Amino acid sequence: MADPTSPFAPLPEPPYYVVTFSSRRTAGDDGYGAMAEEMAALAQAQPGFLGVESVRGTDGFGITNSFWRDEASIQAWKAVVRHAAAQAAGRARWYQDYRVRVARVERAYGFGE
Amino acid sequence: MADPTSPFAPLPEPPYYVVTFSSRRTAGDDGYGAMAEEMAALAQAQPGFLGVESVRGTDGFGITNSFWRDEASIQAWKAVVRHAAAQAAGRARWYQDYRVRVARVERAYGFGE
Repeated sequence: MADPTSPFAPLPEPPYYVVTFSSRRTAGDDGYGAMAEEMAALAQAQPGFLGVESVRGTDGFGITNSFWRDEASIQAWKAVVRHAAAQAAGRARWYQDYRVRVARVERAYGFGE
Repeated sequence: MADPTSPFAPLPEPPYYVVTFSSRRTAGDDGYGAMAEEMAALAQAQPGFLGVESVRGTDGFGITNSFWRDEASIQAWKAVVRHAAAQAAGRARWYQDYRVRVARVERAYGFGE
């Protein structure tokens, strides 16, 4: 059973997809925290969502890797109306800059836990 | 020209590969910082290395996404003797647990900078 306190996404065997989102935040919260919480809940309810791992450093640079069953799930999530609004607000207010890469996970392994 | 102070990896057009390394550190440094610096310099000198993005939170959870030309480059880096020793020491001393996923980047986009 998945441990809800674990920072690791409980993933199936590959293949699946990862979206790497690297970003630098602007200064101040300005509604970012509330939006991030809402988007996390919304993503989890999306068909094909497998899990997410996320961390932000004290310098404002952060990485969020979200995992998806297939490309269609990623495209559907990108088009969700509230998410599209958050993306636009992100460019206008919350992010100085960001990079997104969409990749097909071919193999995976781990240690511990 | 690549900005050496940017946290973003200066990447070519896809396809290329990403290795997502998510980990939880054990408490204390215990030689970790010196090893991490040595491995970063060694990875950069590897054939097929494209770039790296990395962040660790104050709770000890971190994500490092490294980018590579192809699977062969990733396999060669994994087998480098000093790196193999660092992996073994990582399991014995520095990491509570970790997850690795190897994925083929199919598309990429960004905003800003």
